[in-house]
Amino acid sequence: MELRLLLTGNELMSGVTVDSNSALIARKLEPLSLQVCAKHTIGDDRDLLCAELERLASASDVLIVNGGLGPTRDDLTAEALAAVCGVPLEESAVALAHLEAWSAQRGYAMNAANRKQAMLPAGAAVIPNAVGSAVGFRVRYRDCEILCTPGVPGELRVMLDREIVPWLGAQFPAADRVVITRLQFFGIGESGLQQLLSEQCPDWPPHIELGFRAGAPTLELKISSLRAADERDRLACEQRVRELFGDYIIGTGDTSLARCVVELLGRAGQRVATAESCTGGLIAAMLTEVPGASAVYEAGVVSYSNRIKQQLLGVEAHTLAEHGAVSEQVVREMARGALALSGAEHVVSVSGVAGPDGGSADKPVGTVWICWGGQGRLRARQLYFPVARKLFQTMVAATALDLLRREILGIEEEPRYFRERVLRR
Amino acid sequence: MELRLLLTGNELMSGVTVDSNSALIARKLEPLSLQVCAKHTIGDDRDLLCAELERLASASDVLIVNGGLGPTRDDLTAEALAAVCGVPLEESAVALAHLEAWSAQRGYAMNAANRKQAMLPAGAAVIPNAVGSAVGFRVRYRDCEILCTPGVPGELRVMLDREIVPWLGAQFPAADRVVITRLQFFGIGESGLQQLLSEQCPDWPPHIELGFRAGAPTLELKISSLRAADERDRLACEQRVRELFGDYIIGTGDTSLARCVVELLGRAGQRVATAESCTGGLIAAMLTEVPGASAVYEAGVVSYSNRIKQQLLGVEAHTLAEHGAVSEQVVREMARGALALSGAEHVVSVSGVAGPDGGSADKPVGTVWICWGGQGRLRARQLYFPVARKLFQTMVAATALDLLRREILGIEEEPRYFRERVLRR
Repeated sequence: MELRLLLTGNELMSGVTVDSNSALIARKLEPLSLQVCAKHTIGDDRDLLCAELERLASASDVLIVNGGLGPTRDDLTAEALAAVCGVPLEESAVALAHLEAWSAQRGYAMNAANRKQAMLPAGAAVIPNAVGSAVGFRVRYRDCEILCTPGVPGELRVMLDREIVPWLGAQFPAADRVVITRLQFFGIGESGLQQLLSEQCPDWPPHIELGFRAGAPTLELKISSLRAADERDRLACEQRVRELFGDYIIGTGDTSLARCVVELLGRAGQRVATAESCTGGLIAAMLTEVPGASAVYEAGVVSYSNRIKQQLLGVEAHTLAEHGAVSEQVVREMARGALALSGAEHVVSVSGVAGPDGGSADKPVGTVWICWGGQGRLRARQLYFPVARKLFQTMVAATALDLLRREILGIEEEPRYFRERVLRR
Repeated sequence: MELRLLLTGNELMSGVTVDSNSALIARKLEPLSLQVCAKHTIGDDRDLLCAELERLASASDVLIVNGGLGPTRDDLTAEALAAVCGVPLEESAVALAHLEAWSAQRGYAMNAANRKQAMLPAGAAVIPNAVGSAVGFRVRYRDCEILCTPGVPGELRVMLDREIVPWLGAQFPAADRVVITRLQFFGIGESGLQQLLSEQCPDWPPHIELGFRAGAPTLELKISSLRAADERDRLACEQRVRELFGDYIIGTGDTSLARCVVELLGRAGQRVATAESCTGGLIAAMLTEVPGASAVYEAGVVSYSNRIKQQLLGVEAHTLAEHGAVSEQVVREMARGALALSGAEHVVSVSGVAGPDGGSADKPVGTVWICWGGQGRLRARQLYFPVARKLFQTMVAATALDLLRREILGIEEEPRYFRERVLRR
């Protein structure tokens, strides 16, 4: 089965946008044992688009086209595909009804530009879009199923999950069953994990595949078997990985550190409070992005200045004067202050130098103090993340959440990053 | 001049790696007025690679091949290109000397796998690699200059800067100068902007190109002229766009709403405080991601529960009881509380129903109250964003920042979203 991708959009050609959609499509097709054999990317150029559609449809069983479904003049997918197939553009009643419902729900008046999104190649089957205005559509041409999908990643993801993957699964049933577990790690890198695996599992069965995907800040390990018959071996391998690295595994599938912490707290019926300086509210925002966060999170303070640290969190003036804002003493007083005002069982506080300015010889950019725990059991640690401001904030927030996770789970062993993320002199 | 990219590597096909190299290449070529007209990505498959090399070389003046220069069996670029050109692979003395020096410098013994990297198509010109073991190389075939480059982004970047961009600049001096302005909009959608442009500028010159990129939450409009002679027209068009939509333009280039607000406040020597419920710290996190935020931002409260709204922000119990947490009265009291404790000149507060649960008939999921302004000039507005939780939080935070921006700039006219983002009954 030959499956190809055609991605369109000037923003993909100019370097303005990095394409993540094609990786998303490849990952979503994996459980179907469908592989993308080539992908092609072009700008918003009608002639080029027509030529590529013709060429790729002739060579493929399935062609997934991504992008160009929007309301503007440079969104050309429907028009070009109609021209290639030699059919007119027609207003689709299904697409129009969707656009009308979508606009009405948001209180918009539909304009002519929106209405363009209902013009599809005659005979196209509509692929519903649950989260956006542009429907997708499917056309059969030259023995190729051409599926046109939206370029907005959130819309594409939902359309793949709800429509395209099930449809392709029914059309092209896999000869065998690929089984995949995705484990999310925090606190151990790809090379570290790989090295430990080779040392500890020299007898890893060759038919159980391992794949790594380094995200920021988590690392995904994919364990797959390509045949149903290998499922027992796969489960044994997964079990071995869990035994070796259990403390570093935050969950399976698409879970995040924040979701893991919110779920752990929810099960325990406990709450957490935050007091943030250098992360500026990011820890709070990560926690509250998780549905149901309000059951476990009540209060956070972003104390970006010393004055606010004193006023809202009760940090002592002399502590600040003696030790500076980025110090063990200050994060401990911030944590105590947040515990006192929230009444939560858990707390995390951070103070660091995010940069690009504000570093000193003693506390260079990248230095951070993190304090975590609860009443009577606060711990604090200095770590060092000498990276750009945004990545520093992301790493500090993720580490704070991981320390909370370890505390709630009662993991006593110190994480590797206590040894690795250290300011050396 | 036709310039195409051919990217190779199984990791690009499986979704394990998101390709950032092609965006890097496009950005590096932009100052030369060289545009990539298409890019093609395939896995490590010799036959497919040969077929694509043949096809693309026949159609292009320049073909940049990226990836497949490594020491392993699945690195096939040199071998495939030699086969396509009908020449043997030969050990390049230049490449071998580089490999030997590179290994010696790192104290490695060169092995057979490394030595493979010196085998290039006969007649190829070496492109030096200052930071990695694999040299690049250049071959002329079918009137096409084929440049083979390493897949490691850090090596590619240096090779582009030091070797490829200067060489291409010399070979293909720009006949003309592409000029591009990128304007960032907030508060007006792609279709709205396009429609107004067609209505207000029916005489838009065809040689001034418009490109849209819908981000979340901003919209980018790119205005380009392809010839230096068109620069006056381009500037006139840009001026016209600014006249029509000035209030919605947050800046040029890569600017963000948060950066815009931080810069405006910095220039005014003023500060802002935040009091967040449904956004859970996201407004604070967006502001503090901007370098230099500490000069304009001191304090934020994430008051996720009613108790904390009372305790930290002084919201009255009877206000909460009478009007509920998602109400004009409560966001006004939150804003007053944040102003009082921070002493800042500006404030923004939000309270809403992020979902998926917690909605009511009166205040369905997606409802939010935003309050913004300063001492004695607080305004409040109800808006409605019936979208998934994360997007709701992003839209509310962005809208709050935009209202601050408008307030600091003294924009009196109400934004379109006051009419569009409304809960209708």
